[in-house]
Order: sequence, then structure tokens, then C-alpha cells
Amino acid sequence: MPIVDIHTHIYPPSYVDLLRTRQTVPYVRNFEDAPDSSRLIILPGEDDPSTPSTSRGRPIGPEYYDIAQKIAFMDQHKIDKSVISLANPWLDFLPAEEAGEAARKINDDVDKICAGYPGRLYAFGTLPLSADADTIVKEVERLGTLKYMRGVIMGTSGLGDGLDDARLDPVWAAIEKAGQMIFLHPHYGLPKEVYGPRANEYGHVLPLALGFPLETTIAVSRMLLSGVWDRFTNLNVLLAHSGGTLPFLAGRIESCILHDGHLKSKGTRDNRRSVWDILKTNIYLDAVIYSEVGLGAAVAASGADRLLFGTDHPFFPPLEEDVEEWHSVNANYAAIAKAFDNDDQAKGVLGNNAVRILRLDK
Amino acid sequence: MPIVDIHTHIYPPSYVDLLRTRQTVPYVRNFEDAPDSSRLIILPGEDDPSTPSTSRGRPIGPEYYDIAQKIAFMDQHKIDKSVISLANPWLDFLPAEEAGEAARKINDDVDKICAGYPGRLYAFGTLPLSADADTIVKEVERLGTLKYMRGVIMGTSGLGDGLDDARLDPVWAAIEKAGQMIFLHPHYGLPKEVYGPRANEYGHVLPLALGFPLETTIAVSRMLLSGVWDRFTNLNVLLAHSGGTLPFLAGRIESCILHDGHLKSKGTRDNRRSVWDILKTNIYLDAVIYSEVGLGAAVAASGADRLLFGTDHPFFPPLEEDVEEWHSVNANYAAIAKAFDNDDQAKGVLGNNAVRILRLDK
Repeated sequence: MPIVDIHTHIYPPSYVDLLRTRQTVPYVRNFEDAPDSSRLIILPGEDDPSTPSTSRGRPIGPEYYDIAQKIAFMDQHKIDKSVISLANPWLDFLPAEEAGEAARKINDDVDKICAGYPGRLYAFGTLPLSADADTIVKEVERLGTLKYMRGVIMGTSGLGDGLDDARLDPVWAAIEKAGQMIFLHPHYGLPKEVYGPRANEYGHVLPLALGFPLETTIAVSRMLLSGVWDRFTNLNVLLAHSGGTLPFLAGRIESCILHDGHLKSKGTRDNRRSVWDILKTNIYLDAVIYSEVGLGAAVAASGADRLLFGTDHPFFPPLEEDVEEWHSVNANYAAIAKAFDNDDQAKGVLGNNAVRILRLDK
Repeated sequence: MPIVDIHTHIYPPSYVDLLRTRQTVPYVRNFEDAPDSSRLIILPGEDDPSTPSTSRGRPIGPEYYDIAQKIAFMDQHKIDKSVISLANPWLDFLPAEEAGEAARKINDDVDKICAGYPGRLYAFGTLPLSADADTIVKEVERLGTLKYMRGVIMGTSGLGDGLDDARLDPVWAAIEKAGQMIFLHPHYGLPKEVYGPRANEYGHVLPLALGFPLETTIAVSRMLLSGVWDRFTNLNVLLAHSGGTLPFLAGRIESCILHDGHLKSKGTRDNRRSVWDILKTNIYLDAVIYSEVGLGAAVAASGADRLLFGTDHPFFPPLEEDVEEWHSVNANYAAIAKAFDNDDQAKGVLGNNAVRILRLDK
């Protein structure tokens, strides 16, 4: 049985170089008080000048850009195949005229990286979403010609206005036609003020643990409410972090739709596909949830055959110097072991589902 | 076996009168274009002047303030006992000097309402949280002298600065000493911009289905991270809407704490009670989640003996004129029926847990 990691990121060297040229989030920088250590600042809240530079963002080392470290991590954790993806914030921040070329370059780089480890590495490509729809659609089609690409990773911003933006329809149509998986991943989180005046005392916990999952949930709910899946019934979306909070809140979402006077008066409440239908037909969930409680809800919502193991590498490394195996990875392994009595289901989640759904045997 | 509803709101007439005197959220008003219909506007996003008045907020009728309608609703849905509570936004908006007296008046009114239906009605009281700590503590102590009071309902704002505010310690101490339950309920949601530029097209769905649960989750996470339960190990909190998203995200919260460099360097990461410990020791969850998927996660997180049936009445009434039984209530009944093979556990959730935990046999 193969073990497949479908949530594992890379910043190829060309992307890190791009981030080093920047002075605002996202950027990579060596600060004066720690000149030998590079910091990666990607989240809006991480750029607070009142915070010491050594606790801004996160240290960035070769685990972020050197594929040999990814392979070593895979070997250490018995991962046979990885579907790598550029991490957030992708190319969302680029001016329109630079995005198309940057996407082609990075997708070619990532495909070449995969070619160095045939059978072990596949990838989700990156779209030039700040460019015009035509440029984006062309890159979707071009990804279909790259040997190791199996879909695209995407944030929640879309063309800058969210994933419920009708101007995305040509993009959804192209992705649906190409049979690609969309890996939907958070980046923007929530405005800092929602965490209150003492948020800095809690490190990155609140934005990462709560803001990220809710961003994903809002994005997919906006897709649902704007009828994306009524128009694109074969559009497949893999949701990061077991759907954010979607499995847990699906019942409340349906109830709020059913009881909304505005949707009733518009007539859009009744002739629509339900969130439960989408969860079992169009949505796939990763198993990056760190507990059997959450994993159980994900399985109950979408089914064990739509759940896919992931690690979120290189994020969440152990903080202790003497620890080799990653707690974060083992937490997800342990949750899968506890959640399933059925060995076939566990094997599906660990790898067989990914091989089947993403055609990793080809 | 009694059926007990622990999540059921009332705006006593004196509170509605208070809201009618106001011109900003929260308020009750009859608009010019529909002079015979009162609208209740309680959420910040509901006051958009570009929205027709007839879709602002919600119509408010006697189901909000007439206890006879509550009893009729209980009879219709086979509910034996209700623990009623003032709904949001409680007294959060009052000037400090008015809050103490308003709380005493409303708590006395609610206790009298309960006295009219002995054995059927109990209540969570309301605290004058905009007043000084001394006034709040005195009202906590006074609630202990009111026959039908079993705890307090509270929003996430605390003294105005969140529930991780150390100035709340005397209040927690008084509530803990009095053995009262805190019913923690959302109201403020999230800033409107997080729902994107098309949010108005989706009625109240996004703020109610997603903003409310995340508000609760952020509030309880801030309590956890600031060490409230390390200082008050017997402080009991009943979380609305099955904990917002806490059961689903608990694993991610623990993982983010474990992997946070800032918390590690402060030394606050290790000597603390975990979210799992709190969930099984201090937290109770209502069963207002509208699906067996969410309910299953709530049970897995806290245990079936800490889960309590609720309806959220008078919110989420059926929109169809010819429907008698409420869909929202039946969705929660159905979820409980599906979630439990064990009949004793189902009976516990439906009522026995509430009787035991809130001493409703006394």
C-alpha cells in the first residue's frame, strides 16, 4: 500500500528569489538583528514592526526550497508519493502583466523537480490569477501538457474578488474540462482585530488554528451560495485542513439557507444542490486535522473514499532540536489509525484514494 | 423522560421597551414603508440603509416577548422544561451607570415569568457587564437568591475587551463560587468584509452560519490561551451551537499551540491544561447543530453526558405559512435520534443531562 501526501508545499528557488526582491508582505528577508537567518513573512498579521524580527513570520531554510529535504522528510515518515504544491500566497500579489510568465516559469520548474524523482513526485500547478481570464485559461490548458501536474492549487481570492465571482466561470469551465483537481487552500485568514487586543501574546495560534479554517469555509460557502456547483456539476475541489470547518457546520449552513427570508423571496433557496450533495460529489477533504474527532466528522460528511492524507510540510516542524519525527505528521497518522476500524478505509485515506483520484499510477 | 430545552430565548417586555427607545443597533422599530410590522435589528450588518426595511433584521412578534407563546411552542414540540435566557445582545450596549439597575429589573422579570410556570421554566440570568466588576459580582451573588436562576448567559465581549481580559477574574471567581453555569453565546460575529462584496445576496446565511460559530470559537480559545481554566479549574461554560467549531478544530488548536515558537519561548506552551481536558471537564455543549455529523464530533469531543438539547427559539421559525412544527427543531431531534444507538445517551442529551447538571429537579 502506498502512502501519499497530497498536502505538502514547496517554494521553488525561483519563487524564493521573487520573494527576496519584495519589501512588503509576502517577502523573505534577513533582518539586521539576525543577519544569518532568513525569515519568511507571508501572513498580513506577521509584519508587525513592534514584534522582534526573530519572531516575525518563520525561519526559512532549505526545507522550503530544496527538494532533497522533501524526499528525506518523505523517507523518514514512510511517505511513498507526494503531490507537491506552491505554498501560499502563490502568485496572488503579482501585477497582472507579470503573472502569466511567472506561472509558466514556476509550473515548469515544479514539473522538472517532479521529473527528478519519477513515481515519487507529482504536483498541483499555480495559476496566474491576477492576469486576465484568457491568460489563466491558457495556463490551465498548458498544465494538462505537463507530465506530473494533477490539478491546481488556489487561494480564496480568485481574481481578487473571491471565488463567488462570476468572472471566474471561464476558469471553472477550463478546469472542469481538463479534469483537474482544485486544491483550495487558505492564506488571507481574518482581519487581525477579530482576535482581540491580546492576540500577540498567543503567537500565531489564533490566525492559524481558527482564521485559516474559517477562510476556507467562507470561500467554499460563497461558491455554494453563488451556484458554482449548480453551473459546474463536475468541478472537483480538494479542501485543505479537512474542509476548514465545513463538515462540522454543514448542518447549520443548510438550516440557515432554509430559514433565510431573503433567499426564499428570491426563489434561490429551493432549486439548488445542497451542501451535503456537494460534499459527497464534488468535494474531497485532506486529513490534516490532527484529531480523530475532526477526522470522524470529515468522514461522516464526505465519506472515507474522499479523504486524503497530508502533512502540510514544511510547516509545523517540531520545535525541539532533538526530535526527528514530526509531531504534526504523527498526529495525523494517529488520527487515521484511531478513526478507522476498517483497514481498507484507512489504506484508502493513507494513499489508495489519492492514487485513484489523482491518477498517480500513470 | 423529560425533554429540556436549554437554548431558548426571550426578550421580556421591559427589554423590548428598552430597544424601542434606541435609534442605533440594537433597536426595534416600525419603518414607514411597513408601519404595522416591527423589525428587530440586533446584528451590526443588519442595519444597511440600502436594504429595504422589510428585509432588515427580522420581524418581531409576540413569540419574542409573550411567554404564553413559548409555552405553546414547548407543548407543540413536546418540550417539558425550558431554561430561558435573554437573547443577544443582552445589556452589552448600556452605559455603565444604567447597567446594574437594568440587569436587576430584567433578572427579576425573568424569574417572575418562570414562577408563573413552576417546574416548566428555569432561566440563565443576565449580567451588567458594562458596569464595574463590583456591580457585576453583586448581581452574580443576587442571582443565587432568585429561585429559578441556574446560571448566566454571556456574550463574547466581556467587559468590552473579550473574555481573555484579566479584569474578569473577580467575575469568574464569583460565578465559580456560586456554582453557576455560564451559557456562552455569540452576537458580534465577524466584520462584514470577510464575507466579500456579494454577501448581501446571501441574506443572513454567512454571518449566522459561519460568523456566529467562529465568534464563539475565538472567544473560548482566547479564554483557553489566557489561562482562564488554569486559574478557575471549576468554571463551567455551556457553549452555544455545539461549541461553534471547537470540537472540529480542537486538534488543530492543540497542534498550533504545540508548534508555536512564541509560546515555547515564553514557556506557556507546556504547563497548561489542554483543550481536550477543558472539553471533558469544564465545557458543556448544546446540541443545536442541525446534523448528526456535527453532533457526532461534539459527542466525541466532550462526551454524551455533557451535551444538552436546545432549539434557539424564537429564532429560525419555518418560513412557510402552513407549517406547524419547526424544521429547525426537528433537524436537531433527528440528529440526536441518528447519532445515538444508546437510548440512555439520547435521553441524557434530550433532557436528563440538563436536569442533572442544572438541578432542574429542585
